Amino acid sequence: MRIRVVNPNTTASMTRSIGVAATAVAGPGTVVEAVNPTMGPASIESHYEEALAVPGLLEQIALGEQDGVDAYVVACFGDPGLDAARELAAGPVIGIAEAGFHAAAMLGRRFGVVTTLARTTGRAHELAERYGFAPLVTEIRACEVAVLELDDPASGARALVIEECRAVIAGGADAVVLGCAGMADFCAEVSRAIGAPVVDGVAAATVLAESLVRLGLATGKHGEYATPPTKAMSGLLAGFERRPVAGATVGAGA
Amino acid sequence: MRIRVVNPNTTASMTRSIGVAATAVAGPGTVVEAVNPTMGPASIESHYEEALAVPGLLEQIALGEQDGVDAYVVACFGDPGLDAARELAAGPVIGIAEAGFHAAAMLGRRFGVVTTLARTTGRAHELAERYGFAPLVTEIRACEVAVLELDDPASGARALVIEECRAVIAGGADAVVLGCAGMADFCAEVSRAIGAPVVDGVAAATVLAESLVRLGLATGKHGEYATPPTKAMSGLLAGFERRPVAGATVGAGA
Amino acid sequence: MRIRVVNPNTTASMTRSIGVAATAVAGPGTVVEAVNPTMGPASIESHYEEALAVPGLLEQIALGEQDGVDAYVVACFGDPGLDAARELAAGPVIGIAEAGFHAAAMLGRRFGVVTTLARTTGRAHELAERYGFAPLVTEIRACEVAVLELDDPASGARALVIEECRAVIAGGADAVVLGCAGMADFCAEVSRAIGAPVVDGVAAATVLAESLVRLGLATGKHGEYATPPTKAMSGLLAGFERRPVAGATVGAGA
Amino acid sequence: MRIRVVNPNTTASMTRSIGVAATAVAGPGTVVEAVNPTMGPASIESHYEEALAVPGLLEQIALGEQDGVDAYVVACFGDPGLDAARELAAGPVIGIAEAGFHAAAMLGRRFGVVTTLARTTGRAHELAERYGFAPLVTEIRACEVAVLELDDPASGARALVIEECRAVIAGGADAVVLGCAGMADFCAEVSRAIGAPVVDGVAAATVLAESLVRLGLATGKHGEYATPPTKAMSGLLAGFERRPVAGATVGAGA
Amino acid sequence: MRIRVVNPNTTASMTRSIGVAATAVAGPGTVVEAVNPTMGPASIESHYEEALAVPGLLEQIALGEQDGVDAYVVACFGDPGLDAARELAAGPVIGIAEAGFHAAAMLGRRFGVVTTLARTTGRAHELAERYGFAPLVTEIRACEVAVLELDDPASGARALVIEECRAVIAGGADAVVLGCAGMADFCAEVSRAIGAPVVDGVAAATVLAESLVRLGLATGKHGEYATPPTKAMSGLLAGFERRPVAGATVGAGA
Amino acid sequence: MRIRVVNPNTTASMTRSIGVAATAVAGPGTVVEAVNPTMGPASIESHYEEALAVPGLLEQIALGEQDGVDAYVVACFGDPGLDAARELAAGPVIGIAEAGFHAAAMLGRRFGVVTTLARTTGRAHELAERYGFAPLVTEIRACEVAVLELDDPASGARALVIEECRAVIAGGADAVVLGCAGMADFCAEVSRAIGAPVVDGVAAATVLAESLVRLGLATGKHGEYATPPTKAMSGLLAGFERRPVAGATVGAGA
Repeated sequence: MRIRVVNPNTTASMTRSIGVAATAVAGPGTVVEAVNPTMGPASIESHYEEALAVPGLLEQIALGEQDGVDAYVVACFGDPGLDAARELAAGPVIGIAEAGFHAAAMLGRRFGVVTTLARTTGRAHELAERYGFAPLVTEIRACEVAVLELDDPASGARALVIEECRAVIAGGADAVVLGCAGMADFCAEVSRAIGAPVVDGVAAATVLAESLVRLGLATGKHGEYATPPTKAMSGLLAGFERRPVAGATVGAGA
Repeated sequence: MRIRVVNPNTTASMTRSIGVAATAVAGPGTVVEAVNPTMGPASIESHYEEALAVPGLLEQIALGEQDGVDAYVVACFGDPGLDAARELAAGPVIGIAEAGFHAAAMLGRRFGVVTTLARTTGRAHELAERYGFAPLVTEIRACEVAVLELDDPASGARALVIEECRAVIAGGADAVVLGCAGMADFCAEVSRAIGAPVVDGVAAATVLAESLVRLGLATGKHGEYATPPTKAMSGLLAGFERRPVAGATVGAGA
Repeated sequence: MRIRVVNPNTTASMTRSIGVAATAVAGPGTVVEAVNPTMGPASIESHYEEALAVPGLLEQIALGEQDGVDAYVVACFGDPGLDAARELAAGPVIGIAEAGFHAAAMLGRRFGVVTTLARTTGRAHELAERYGFAPLVTEIRACEVAVLELDDPASGARALVIEECRAVIAGGADAVVLGCAGMADFCAEVSRAIGAPVVDGVAAATVLAESLVRLGLATGKHGEYATPPTKAMSGLLAGFERRPVAGATVGAGA
Repeated sequence: MRIRVVNPNTTASMTRSIGVAATAVAGPGTVVEAVNPTMGPASIESHYEEALAVPGLLEQIALGEQDGVDAYVVACFGDPGLDAARELAAGPVIGIAEAGFHAAAMLGRRFGVVTTLARTTGRAHELAERYGFAPLVTEIRACEVAVLELDDPASGARALVIEECRAVIAGGADAVVLGCAGMADFCAEVSRAIGAPVVDGVAAATVLAESLVRLGLATGKHGEYATPPTKAMSGLLAGFERRPVAGATVGAGA
Repeated sequence: MRIRVVNPNTTASMTRSIGVAATAVAGPGTVVEAVNPTMGPASIESHYEEALAVPGLLEQIALGEQDGVDAYVVACFGDPGLDAARELAAGPVIGIAEAGFHAAAMLGRRFGVVTTLARTTGRAHELAERYGFAPLVTEIRACEVAVLELDDPASGARALVIEECRAVIAGGADAVVLGCAGMADFCAEVSRAIGAPVVDGVAAATVLAESLVRLGLATGKHGEYATPPTKAMSGLLAGFERRPVAGATVGAGA
Repeated sequence: MRIRVVNPNTTASMTRSIGVAATAVAGPGTVVEAVNPTMGPASIESHYEEALAVPGLLEQIALGEQDGVDAYVVACFGDPGLDAARELAAGPVIGIAEAGFHAAAMLGRRFGVVTTLARTTGRAHELAERYGFAPLVTEIRACEVAVLELDDPASGARALVIEECRAVIAGGADAVVLGCAGMADFCAEVSRAIGAPVVDGVAAATVLAESLVRLGLATGKHGEYATPPTKAMSGLLAGFERRPVAGATVGAGA
């Protein structure tokens, strides 16, 4: 089984970390391929950046379809382009916010989220509502460290994340979801520190994608998520009508 | 006051019709500018197309900011890129689904929607939920005519839309919202035919955008919708880090 | 276009302030007429007073229909008698809580409300639920100044309202709605003080009523909001069966 | 224990029927007093009529307080003036829609409602939402017989109500609530005919009001429902500032 | 009329207290019988204990059916086995959480709950959601005193309950529900201390059960709550297929 | 990794089928153990039977804890005893309704359910609400075949289930969940017949339980789901205080 984990930003070091986190939980016989787009923003912390990350993400999905990939993970906590990716892919596509919420929901009655910048919490609330989990979410807290500073020891991110996760548990949650793919390698340490379950969306999405493939399940294709019609595309995106863009190459983190 | 109405697809004839509908309701002294992107899909009937329409839409918003535009309308019923556009623009930005829902909500207790293809109804339900109107929506019906065929007499679109709108009213709604910018010029005829209020989102968004400008109101900028940071953009979208893309020109429908 | 703004209480000085606020935002060519009933309470701060304000309000709507008014604003934040007024009027009728919520909803993801006495917050929550906006409301705070003391400098109302609005923004809202028609003239000052959008319902309702008239839209009349049947009325309200009461005169604030 | 059942319309024959229904279920030692206002509409089938019924209803509550009444029933399915009545009364006040919903909710998982005219169903839905029961309501159906024709054998109301109640049960409800005080005397017959529990709100409200008195419970008076302040009232309602109006007499149905 | 109040735990002293509370509010002519199972846990403070209390509770319901009981109260705030009991009994069955919520809902707009251990609050939230009252619940607080220590003066339970109830009212609730059958005898004292309505579920359920019997209402039996089929039962529960178990005797608290 | 799949009824042939379905999807190295209780009902089609199945289910969980089981599946679509099982087990516990809903939610926007008897649909709706999925559920349909007749060719169950699943897809769902562990072996055939994703909860729960173990996640144990205190148990359940019952043996299907 081949699972392609797409980091929708263009930062290769982050793609590599994501690949490590996904590979660590994949089952025997599952090949994890971590990639990132060749176009778009270096990190995603606004609606603007999220929107501009999507074409490159979709290019990666289209390339994956050419390559016979079995399932995809969209490794940004805003789950950018998830609906569009589901239209393109034959197999399942899982977002890491979606996966983190699903996993946490099975660990008790309610869970909270700790994310990077406060400006991203609106999107996280919106996704919780979309997937049905809003009544199960106790709160969504921000540690106010930017995505690309999470792995800079000077940012103090680990300590801040631990502090916010502890507050989530004190507030009545049974589990915590980490709200950024860049926090994947904090997960075990944070869980040990707070003595409660902590979910990394990248790892969760990887095993959930595997699970759906194992079950023989994929996106329903008879309605909203049917393959989109081939349609004229203009300008910079002209190549996108043919899905995927000819000559595109898998990103640096692959 | 200058209001820029952005048709997020690249079909200039549709941009012109949208411009006519918006101009017809704008107040004295308000200049309506209808534009479309130079990049992206010819029409939007899938999540994939919607995602690819957004960069071109955002380019138009950025150009509008250079030009001192007072407010924007996003003239596609999926309200694509609305959150990102709100981050970019200093003035208000209104989507036509959003506007149609708001106007219809003030005409009674509940309303229904008639849209183009059934595959787009999921997105319409999601938007109704996002804006809070889901409990007021009786149903969302599709006439199964594609966007670019709406103005082809051979499609029989007008008769089909009238039929579906009549069904919405029979089902208990006080008003109907037309679910596509391409239906803007049907609105008065449909309303006469069914004897009930029918809302065109393009016209509604135009007057609501004017209203907010008149009230001196614009998107709150101290949190989620603050201007996004300047950030490296790669590949095809490299120019987007500078917002707007140098040399971009306002689309054909302007 | 003629818009009649009905202050449902009988305090003429407040009617005049409301008229000023509405006139300030009305478009060119729109005539704003501020009126108040000849019967009922001097101000509305309880369910009892709200209920007793409604007959006089409805009398004003009935008089407006005789006079060919195009649209109405109900200028009390409890939106008293709104459904009944919609039955009587041919044109649109907008409540100021309704209008304030609609305007604020287009300025970001969520908004809060600052009102007068805490005892009125239950009604405000109920209206937010009714119109669909409850999931968008972060909180409803009271400054504990009575309606008729708002314009008494000794009450310190402006400073208190600024303080509560600041707390609303600090709590995560993108905008604030002022929860009393008597706060209409605070709006610009409060917004400047807190650096975030502040919505006055009187002004918002005025431009929204204008907007609906410009769109050719009015309350759907084929169901719940059809004109009520003529029916025997007894006692003090005997005249109300003929709508409007013969000899009634437009209130002092007109 | 004295329970005053207030029919908010002025039709004395209906007040008498309501009194019979309430008396039939009251416990030993409980005195039921059925009254109606001296002012307002002959029946309530619109928001306009409901609004005009409220002053007379509140006058009856105020008179009841002078007379030492222990609890009140508001015997119209729109629960008109309920919040205001709770402000005036020291003891509990129960609406018959409220009571019917409460009783039906204890008889299974979900219930439906059968009411008079379709134009009143919007209000019934609104009340179900207000009290929390909306998720338990399967549907609200109308038999399209006017209130004052319910007891006219020529209207065929009984057969129509039975037919609609049967449809409610077939649709998955465990019980049915009759949506008009004028249906009180149909209740047992309808229940026998359909073989399922049928709730009359008048009877239900009577026993629930008794129950609260027996429990020593009444409306919480430290917040929203505190006694309203004495305030100037003008015009036709001038007497209402003193609650109750001097010289008012208990209505014909008492 | 005979109402059997079933304490689902096996602590006879608690059964006696519950019987006293129920008897105190029952109407003249109503016989209250307080019983407890012969099997199961001594008190219920976990999902595990609640699950193990249910067979014994159902045995008591089955015995009651043999004895011609008219209605039942399930006297534990988790409302254990309520759906199953409704299948077995011909008459109404009311849980004390259910009853407490219903009574409190009629005393204002919103209410809060004060319960024993924090670990039980999840279940209380779930029940509020199930019955529809979740939007009316302000908060559910715990005093962290175990059920069987409530009547031990050394536990300081009364003072703690008063403190938590006061906090509920300060938080905006109109009334408080006591979240444990073991608090039944605190109710009047707590209410006096905080000056607001306080609801004991045992008393409330008793009068509500009486009310339904008086109305001639019982669980709808044509669907989900039809009598379950006779079915083979194995092992320790072998006797339960015959409902009730032969030779079972009414518990010690009867 | 050892996953114990507990069929909560006592029918060994059904336990064997469930074991086959679970084993078919388990990963390499995972041992699936299918067991059933030694006490309780032969099948579960009512709240009464569900309640009586729980003690035997909990005994199996307790035995599993002695045996070092890593995770559990509760293989009945009512998810009986799930909260109690989570208190007892150190590792994750997944119900098959829960698992089916989670899997289906990742296959599109909305899904429907096809179950056995209509009397069980109330519980299924309640679970969908509890887990957050209610807004995603289009409908829950029954084929009206009893659990133990599903594998009797004379019941025509397969054809009926296919027909109901087709109706679910026609109604707008992207996927269907089969609402009974006894339908596990229909899943592939039904999916082929209707051309849309069909989820068997037994298989889904097995891979989700594996997933959580692989992620190192288990139920949060610091609050509601902490191990329950040891407490006196009386009568037939006397042994349950020591968890597990001494001398209990794993059921016939193991």
